[in-house]
Amino acid sequence: MTTVKEKVKITFLGGVGEIGKNMTAFEYNNEIIIVDAGLTFPDDDLPGVDIVVPDIQYILNNKEKVKAIILTHGHEDHIGGLPFLLPEINVPVYGSRLTLGLVENKLKEYPKIKAKLVSVKPRNVLKVGSFSVEFINVNHSIAGSLALCITTPCGNIVHTGDFKIDFEAINGQVTDLTRFGELGKKGVNLLMCESTNVCRKGYSMSERRVGETLDKLFEKYKDKRLFVATFASNIHRLQQIMDLAEKYKRKIAFTGRSMVNVSEVAMKLGELKYDKENVIDIDKVDKFADKELLIITTGSQGEPMSALTRMAANEFKKITLGENDCIIISASPIPGNEKSVYTVINKLYKKGTEVIYDELEDVHASGHACQEEIKIIHTLIKPACFMPIHGEYRHLKTHKELAVALGENPRNIILPDLGMQVEMTNGHIKECGRVQAGQRLVDGLGIGDMDSSVLRDRKQLSEDGICVAVLNIGTLSGELASEPFLITRGVVYTGEQEQFMQDTKEMLMDYLRSQDIKDVDTNLIKQNVRRQLQNFIFKRTARRPIILVIVLLD
Amino acid sequence: MTTVKEKVKITFLGGVGEIGKNMTAFEYNNEIIIVDAGLTFPDDDLPGVDIVVPDIQYILNNKEKVKAIILTHGHEDHIGGLPFLLPEINVPVYGSRLTLGLVENKLKEYPKIKAKLVSVKPRNVLKVGSFSVEFINVNHSIAGSLALCITTPCGNIVHTGDFKIDFEAINGQVTDLTRFGELGKKGVNLLMCESTNVCRKGYSMSERRVGETLDKLFEKYKDKRLFVATFASNIHRLQQIMDLAEKYKRKIAFTGRSMVNVSEVAMKLGELKYDKENVIDIDKVDKFADKELLIITTGSQGEPMSALTRMAANEFKKITLGENDCIIISASPIPGNEKSVYTVINKLYKKGTEVIYDELEDVHASGHACQEEIKIIHTLIKPACFMPIHGEYRHLKTHKELAVALGENPRNIILPDLGMQVEMTNGHIKECGRVQAGQRLVDGLGIGDMDSSVLRDRKQLSEDGICVAVLNIGTLSGELASEPFLITRGVVYTGEQEQFMQDTKEMLMDYLRSQDIKDVDTNLIKQNVRRQLQNFIFKRTARRPIILVIVLLD
Repeated sequence: MTTVKEKVKITFLGGVGEIGKNMTAFEYNNEIIIVDAGLTFPDDDLPGVDIVVPDIQYILNNKEKVKAIILTHGHEDHIGGLPFLLPEINVPVYGSRLTLGLVENKLKEYPKIKAKLVSVKPRNVLKVGSFSVEFINVNHSIAGSLALCITTPCGNIVHTGDFKIDFEAINGQVTDLTRFGELGKKGVNLLMCESTNVCRKGYSMSERRVGETLDKLFEKYKDKRLFVATFASNIHRLQQIMDLAEKYKRKIAFTGRSMVNVSEVAMKLGELKYDKENVIDIDKVDKFADKELLIITTGSQGEPMSALTRMAANEFKKITLGENDCIIISASPIPGNEKSVYTVINKLYKKGTEVIYDELEDVHASGHACQEEIKIIHTLIKPACFMPIHGEYRHLKTHKELAVALGENPRNIILPDLGMQVEMTNGHIKECGRVQAGQRLVDGLGIGDMDSSVLRDRKQLSEDGICVAVLNIGTLSGELASEPFLITRGVVYTGEQEQFMQDTKEMLMDYLRSQDIKDVDTNLIKQNVRRQLQNFIFKRTARRPIILVIVLLD
Repeated sequence: MTTVKEKVKITFLGGVGEIGKNMTAFEYNNEIIIVDAGLTFPDDDLPGVDIVVPDIQYILNNKEKVKAIILTHGHEDHIGGLPFLLPEINVPVYGSRLTLGLVENKLKEYPKIKAKLVSVKPRNVLKVGSFSVEFINVNHSIAGSLALCITTPCGNIVHTGDFKIDFEAINGQVTDLTRFGELGKKGVNLLMCESTNVCRKGYSMSERRVGETLDKLFEKYKDKRLFVATFASNIHRLQQIMDLAEKYKRKIAFTGRSMVNVSEVAMKLGELKYDKENVIDIDKVDKFADKELLIITTGSQGEPMSALTRMAANEFKKITLGENDCIIISASPIPGNEKSVYTVINKLYKKGTEVIYDELEDVHASGHACQEEIKIIHTLIKPACFMPIHGEYRHLKTHKELAVALGENPRNIILPDLGMQVEMTNGHIKECGRVQAGQRLVDGLGIGDMDSSVLRDRKQLSEDGICVAVLNIGTLSGELASEPFLITRGVVYTGEQEQFMQDTKEMLMDYLRSQDIKDVDTNLIKQNVRRQLQNFIFKRTARRPIILVIVLLD
């Protein structure tokens, strides 16, 4: 009996074998705590899908056990899945003040959800049933980021969340290495450490370097109207930018929905220190000279509807860009966004504006630890067991090699993947099962399970188009009651369209005349006509559109 | 009269304001020479399009003037458009032996094209009417790369092609700086210099560094079976890899169509030095021990049908990968390919193979000059006028700033874009007109002009799917002769499909019953039904599929 109780089960529902939609469940007897509930943005494999959240079937099967949701920080890949989880299990949600401020802001769009949000601070310890969770300050590209030390009946687990070690942290609060050291000395059974930048050698750049570069640029372009595009959630970046505005006597205007929302949340919570006099509404910018203005905007990823993208396309009424403007894009393109970002930059340059971006100057610093920082954490924690998290398989693999090189025992290291369950006992971990896990696609108003046939259809539609043929067959005569009706979309270019349709129709009529279709099964007619069309269109265009044949019996 | 003759007209048909499909026409009186005829690969904006080549309407309008096509090197973005140009103007094509070998190989797929290929060497001078073209050796990621000095009645033009300066060039032939210096001293009226890496500070890495890293890896993994995936056209890379195979006593097998083709061309031309004994057929690999084998393969970009991608997916019959294999991906992901490349790497790791790629080791060097190398060229050439080429607008803009910082006169610098015509006289350049230019999309067997409606349809189809409704209306009764017929593709997930179709059909029948459709114009019925369906489906799914309504009159 006792042995059964001495086990903690860890279930991976997101964020392993992938970057995004982080979610992990920690379970002891009849108690579950969930760490993070993120989303991920779909890539080209999922046309038309808006967002992707974790499959939570395992949570639904164990609803009554869930006691708490704990958020490490306020990025979308850690909080964005909440609106799809809370309607199912409405347990208290714990996180830092800023994290919960961002959650509140997000939940405004879901008025039916009444969340119980409980804010915590670094070094606070939270009791949830048999678990106790200590929160540890870490640096990251959003303020209010926390690592966790989860004390369980089978030993301590340190979960880093996302982190870097910024020795020159903007708010003076360096990642709490002392506490990590104390915990290591006390004994940590399992380390779960993030892996995003584990393939990068050395140390990450300090956020403060970005500030120094921006200072130089504010000085250099002191006569121009200045714009900075950045991630709204990077509060320390915003703080540095606002401090520079004060130094260079510029009024600050925010634009872009998320920038306005997030800065308001952060200012309200006191996470952003500033002089109220210096912040003006974007509608008032005309009242100031160019050199007196700093506009902080969204659009650092070239997002189609963002303020900067609209300014570049002359679709933003409040601001017209010109030769006396300098735009600083204080961000790196997230992989996949390069083309959109560079398109915006090219458009801005063509307007004669100055553009500074990360390829030209150090205007962005990553929020994730590189190899040497990760080594510091391993060295301080000295865990008995280790599981790399938050990364594709290649990251997790490289992280394992790093741990082994530091002397950790490969037999006590597991590379988790989606749906894996790991059993932790004191001094050991082992894989103990698999549960349903994966993607839930949120698309329009629907939330569906992965349904490959819809996505395959969409992909084929997008590459080769569609051809619809309607045949009206007289049941008595067994002949066409009227000419076949054809429509195509996305198959042939306008110039060729008419001739193509005419030829296809003739082919079809010739074919049907040559067949005895009287009393023939409709499905057989459909099949044969589809095959005829397929061959004809492929010979003519080398394309394979989706072909729909509709037979109406007259 | 004389002034008219004293002008050279330069027409930009590709490769400016973009990276790819390079093509420029140089014109003097009744003579045109074309430099390069490239292609580009389509991005997500062009679903289903296979390749994109320049719009050559200007060339077609001036067919009889064209005297020669000159190729700077054998990359697809410089030669890939030839099959679509040569059927229109069959003039001699000049280039290095390797370049023409690759052209010949490509033209095998177009047996109707009889090209006149004339090979040239560095320092050769070619006379074409009033032009004379000198070929100058440059380093690049393909052997046989040439810059051009085009002597015209209005002064000399230096066109760099694509280049870097590799002081430790693998074949010992460093970019011919001496000749650039001599030309500079003689006087160059116009420099046209490539801009791909102009935003990168410092110098590009020498190809020889890659060789050193590979040597270290061959030593480290000397007991494993080795695979190197790289660009088939990077002959100097292949040479280094083959030399290492010899050093470490491994037999070499090539796999992947382009790798087999290109290596055969290069070996036949003597561009690759090797011992015949050491090269074996891929079918023979089973006869050797793992440590005696080196397999050189395609797939460095995660291309779906490539050998490495198929090996990773267990779809490559000749090779089964396992724990005694080490795969070196000697390439960087081309922007846009990151996801495919990392997917392959993750799959390979999961098989237990070792994988080394550019994030972990220096296994790739760019073929394009960085800032300091570009400065060397400007300094040697000392041009009167300058036009940056081969780059997006942001590259061309940054290149202009670099030239101005070196003391060049901004009034003698033009940033070209597609369709721009520039008139060169001695000591001056000026924009003098615009011609039709842009994209020709090659898609299946068709070559069409940009036709946005097809692409818009495909995009909408891919995101929201399609709904087809067929109404059979009795002309006499003015009522539905049968139930409406509905088909959707890509709209709703399978689980919801049946209910959705039922509800939609009922909505439609209710609507039609409420209308008096007798004698109503068919187009009006279609419009109204389409609007009803649009609203109903949007309310239900928040999607906007393409809706086709077909009305048949009974």
